[in-house]
Amino acid sequence: MIQAGIIGGTGYTGVELLRILTLHPEVQIHKVTSRADAGKRVDSLYPNLRGYVDAVFTEPSMESLAECDVVFFATPNGTAMRMAEPLLERGVKIIDLAADFRLTDPAAWEHWYGEPHTCPRLMQEAVYGLPEINRERLRNARLVANPGCYPTAVQLGLLPLVEQRLIRLDSIIADAKSGVSGAGRKAEIPMLMSETGESFKAYGVKGHRHLPEIRQGLEQACGEPVGLTFVPHLVPMIRGIHATIYAQWAGSDATDLQSLYETRYRDEPFVDVLPEGSHPDTRNVRGSNRCQIAAHRPQGGNTVVILSVIDNLVKGAAGQAVQNMNLMFGLEEMTGLRAIGIYP
Amino acid sequence: MIQAGIIGGTGYTGVELLRILTLHPEVQIHKVTSRADAGKRVDSLYPNLRGYVDAVFTEPSMESLAECDVVFFATPNGTAMRMAEPLLERGVKIIDLAADFRLTDPAAWEHWYGEPHTCPRLMQEAVYGLPEINRERLRNARLVANPGCYPTAVQLGLLPLVEQRLIRLDSIIADAKSGVSGAGRKAEIPMLMSETGESFKAYGVKGHRHLPEIRQGLEQACGEPVGLTFVPHLVPMIRGIHATIYAQWAGSDATDLQSLYETRYRDEPFVDVLPEGSHPDTRNVRGSNRCQIAAHRPQGGNTVVILSVIDNLVKGAAGQAVQNMNLMFGLEEMTGLRAIGIYP
Amino acid sequence: MIQAGIIGGTGYTGVELLRILTLHPEVQIHKVTSRADAGKRVDSLYPNLRGYVDAVFTEPSMESLAECDVVFFATPNGTAMRMAEPLLERGVKIIDLAADFRLTDPAAWEHWYGEPHTCPRLMQEAVYGLPEINRERLRNARLVANPGCYPTAVQLGLLPLVEQRLIRLDSIIADAKSGVSGAGRKAEIPMLMSETGESFKAYGVKGHRHLPEIRQGLEQACGEPVGLTFVPHLVPMIRGIHATIYAQWAGSDATDLQSLYETRYRDEPFVDVLPEGSHPDTRNVRGSNRCQIAAHRPQGGNTVVILSVIDNLVKGAAGQAVQNMNLMFGLEEMTGLRAIGIYP
Amino acid sequence: MIQAGIIGGTGYTGVELLRILTLHPEVQIHKVTSRADAGKRVDSLYPNLRGYVDAVFTEPSMESLAECDVVFFATPNGTAMRMAEPLLERGVKIIDLAADFRLTDPAAWEHWYGEPHTCPRLMQEAVYGLPEINRERLRNARLVANPGCYPTAVQLGLLPLVEQRLIRLDSIIADAKSGVSGAGRKAEIPMLMSETGESFKAYGVKGHRHLPEIRQGLEQACGEPVGLTFVPHLVPMIRGIHATIYAQWAGSDATDLQSLYETRYRDEPFVDVLPEGSHPDTRNVRGSNRCQIAAHRPQGGNTVVILSVIDNLVKGAAGQAVQNMNLMFGLEEMTGLRAIGIYP
Repeated sequence: MIQAGIIGGTGYTGVELLRILTLHPEVQIHKVTSRADAGKRVDSLYPNLRGYVDAVFTEPSMESLAECDVVFFATPNGTAMRMAEPLLERGVKIIDLAADFRLTDPAAWEHWYGEPHTCPRLMQEAVYGLPEINRERLRNARLVANPGCYPTAVQLGLLPLVEQRLIRLDSIIADAKSGVSGAGRKAEIPMLMSETGESFKAYGVKGHRHLPEIRQGLEQACGEPVGLTFVPHLVPMIRGIHATIYAQWAGSDATDLQSLYETRYRDEPFVDVLPEGSHPDTRNVRGSNRCQIAAHRPQGGNTVVILSVIDNLVKGAAGQAVQNMNLMFGLEEMTGLRAIGIYP
Repeated sequence: MIQAGIIGGTGYTGVELLRILTLHPEVQIHKVTSRADAGKRVDSLYPNLRGYVDAVFTEPSMESLAECDVVFFATPNGTAMRMAEPLLERGVKIIDLAADFRLTDPAAWEHWYGEPHTCPRLMQEAVYGLPEINRERLRNARLVANPGCYPTAVQLGLLPLVEQRLIRLDSIIADAKSGVSGAGRKAEIPMLMSETGESFKAYGVKGHRHLPEIRQGLEQACGEPVGLTFVPHLVPMIRGIHATIYAQWAGSDATDLQSLYETRYRDEPFVDVLPEGSHPDTRNVRGSNRCQIAAHRPQGGNTVVILSVIDNLVKGAAGQAVQNMNLMFGLEEMTGLRAIGIYP
Repeated sequence: MIQAGIIGGTGYTGVELLRILTLHPEVQIHKVTSRADAGKRVDSLYPNLRGYVDAVFTEPSMESLAECDVVFFATPNGTAMRMAEPLLERGVKIIDLAADFRLTDPAAWEHWYGEPHTCPRLMQEAVYGLPEINRERLRNARLVANPGCYPTAVQLGLLPLVEQRLIRLDSIIADAKSGVSGAGRKAEIPMLMSETGESFKAYGVKGHRHLPEIRQGLEQACGEPVGLTFVPHLVPMIRGIHATIYAQWAGSDATDLQSLYETRYRDEPFVDVLPEGSHPDTRNVRGSNRCQIAAHRPQGGNTVVILSVIDNLVKGAAGQAVQNMNLMFGLEEMTGLRAIGIYP
Repeated sequence: MIQAGIIGGTGYTGVELLRILTLHPEVQIHKVTSRADAGKRVDSLYPNLRGYVDAVFTEPSMESLAECDVVFFATPNGTAMRMAEPLLERGVKIIDLAADFRLTDPAAWEHWYGEPHTCPRLMQEAVYGLPEINRERLRNARLVANPGCYPTAVQLGLLPLVEQRLIRLDSIIADAKSGVSGAGRKAEIPMLMSETGESFKAYGVKGHRHLPEIRQGLEQACGEPVGLTFVPHLVPMIRGIHATIYAQWAGSDATDLQSLYETRYRDEPFVDVLPEGSHPDTRNVRGSNRCQIAAHRPQGGNTVVILSVIDNLVKGAAGQAVQNMNLMFGLEEMTGLRAIGIYP
């Protein structure tokens, strides 16, 4: 059994990790830490886990974490970069669900996250945890940077086009929409139900931290600079991301969009290309680790429209982290991740 | 492997059965019927099942259903009573998720369901599928009447009190609230999101079909007539039932309400008595087969207040049906039903 | 023009007062105070008011408030009782939307609100602002205690029965449900949309501050002690309260429930008794100052079921406050309050 | 008083017209027709109107409609084109809230609406009812084609750019999101709350009927062909449209986007340009006739991002129809339309 630790187990990605790992046949949850709730039973905060999780939140300590085979950081940005090095030295593998190791350029990190990176050396070693790109590297990784939720949906939607340079790379538009759980479990007025319910709005138009992450991924996929406009929106629902992606077709007329996507993702266990003409619905992946994608060229014109949906807490966070863990430990990739989307 | 058939697989209880049975290790889905959608792939209607369910909806036919070990009726009321006899004769076990075999009195059935019952003989044989009451009888049942959603939540909330006659039996009040999926997948204006979203209302105050079902269950539990007022309400959410039950305490002051509930349900795998003072939240059982209950006596007064929550499509329908199937086929009762409530 | 001041204009009752008073033909908003947001334009926080409200939040000061004809306290409990006396001395009328002057008994206030009342003398002078009971006293009031949201819905639902003692007074049950705006505009994790959306729960079963307020009102209406069980619930919607009230009929069989309600409320501009057999829906009073009520005796039994709905921010708070102001200043009672419920 | 008729008063635009016109000081509702509900009281279907509307639904008849000064068609597409001519001949002014007179080209109409237009002559006479473009023509119009909801939000968002050709006109993208009331009050499974709640999806990517309407409006505004990709999405809320518009800047660097918008809409009573850097929220215009707009150039790049919100049933339908009526009858444009957006 893999001994797993979760640091910062009181946020939404933390509790989602608990829900998935609890039923994972090869994992035992060894430690769940939370400074704020140390001493409380996990299931007193999360009654859905009663009878499944016996753990008590503890203060994070290097000794007890060093007993783990793998540690998940479900912490705010800036935490993992301060603890990763000593853990790695003790032979613990790390999967960071925050942003500390997603960017490779320390200057970019400082620009977007507002403080210098404390561990730039590991930024190079960390493997970006999108298995659809980095599966082989992930098998041998010690330190995995689990992708952001928006970057997962947008990159999976764009990879087939960008890898083969079938679109103009200078003017991609990603109009993305997220449920409110993406904002985390923090006491903030703008995330009250009275503020977000029955309403819809864009945010971060000026620049969102997921923009450089998506751009970096796309540029690595095609080896060229990419021009991207990324606008996130807040949807009055709890879970789900829908990315609507627009790009100008630069391929030949002989290239069939549908086959391109089906071929690219044929062997991917968690990417499902829908039949031609489909419109994916976030509810169909709710609670599952799946990304569903549909590719369109409306009226046969030059604009390609890609629709890509995930559950932001599963394929966009905890589920993808477990998928990465499965790869890192040589397990079958779908282990513990077979849950079917909950509809209705 | 148990060969299972689902009749009426296009409604919400049908698709929930599919979701649960697909991942059940001892079951193979042999047939899924739907007159309206015969010939279509199941996953074309329910894309959450893509890659998991390969079946095509078929017309219901006695021959092919007779190949099944068990048939689930996820049909409108009045269907199972017309097909049960020939299926039983062919050795097929039946679990009816509709109301055809819930009441034991044909006259009451006719009164509440508006037509004569076509198969009164089987009304006596059918076992009411609430394992918390009828576990042993269910192990040998050929025909199970799966309880209604409200009746499950209300009866589990009341059983400890009624069985021991610790409350006045003539004036029980069950104020119940359900998410909209309880109304089924039918094209009706009152169930549009524009009609039910952001609003709350009672319905059926004059008399709801679950009233005689609950009363019958309670009367069997205590062997006396029961006076019950039952008022259902519609909540602007998809899944979940919350029953708030009021009764006048008739027990001694020495009897501890909390211990009463904990003792009664100690060995029940799917009934979870929360710690004293708790308020169960429907989200904590969403997608799970669990009932969570809290028992209160506000200000130490005579009025007992019981709070009981379930997912109407799981413990209130498809999950309980699978729990019954497990009992009927000698499987461990939790098989295929270990999913944890999805929070947030 | 009446010069009005609003103290604590940044909560939901404050902004609702602003919305109503802005279009009130006889009122000018003279001051809107907020310690936290002093110096900011009101419409920078509340863009729905752009072009309608030119005001800037100011620090509350006795001088500038003394220029007002009436001051509304849309503040947390415990604020108005500290400022009321000097304002009244300066000739300013006061409407308190918080709980400071709702109870008449200082000991009860201290018990339920956790601190001694600083101004018990005014508790006696204050008029409880339910016009359906106190219309004449309100015309001459200097200090009005605007009722709580639940107490408004529950008392209007019970008055016809209690005033004429047509029910048993010792065992009334009020099962009440509220949208989340009732919890106010405070940064608290339990009120995040991820916590309250798609879920339903009871709270405060042990005892809620609106219980003594409702009981006091009912006891004044019938002159006898009243036994009341009050259980509030949280509905995943923003606005609206639905009270489902249960009581044991003690009247003669000749008394017609429907006529009783129609007669009692015939001349009430904001209480609308629905036709027999109706189920009021909170959406139909959303944004309006109306209470809609339906009275039932299911199956002609002894249990009376009353359904009563309001918009918690309008008839349950700001709208009722303006109705009271209209009475205090001799205006036609409906002035500025003719908005129709927004459906869908 | 203007005598008004509403044809098809049982849909959401019909009931919204009733809500607005009932409080309009210069209008009397003379007739409300509905074939399906003829004979029923309007307020029996719409209890929010109790006490405000005394009317009974009638069968539409030319005689009684001819008594009106103005008739609103709140009917399905294809109704108004069959009744407009005789009504106009009898001197009745017409405002069609459906699509019959929005396009000027009969061939395009037939292509998008699937049947030949029965009254092509009037397609030329009809004035497109977007006052921000056609105010003067509307003052003298006999027949007004009230714009679609998406076209209102998208055109108001684009007009300042398109009129002055400050963007590339061949590659505009409008990613639009609507609440579910836009789908109307029709019994359809995909619009059940269980289907649309807690989920998000695109629809009509292949081609939506509002595409040619928007394109026609933009082409008239700039006198050139316009290339537009329009993708609508369904948001789990009742009211509100949010258009996110992307275009490539073709203006000089000296041109200030914010001033451009503020100047263009300075005198518009119902278009509100938000301060630089804002993100409009649909809730702030809920129930109001306002469009709120924000204009961005993220990171100073070439892509312009415009955010435009309306209430689809008010500025996107009934409110704009009343605004047009005010113009047609020489009333002050805001008469009856001063309602403030309901927040929260």
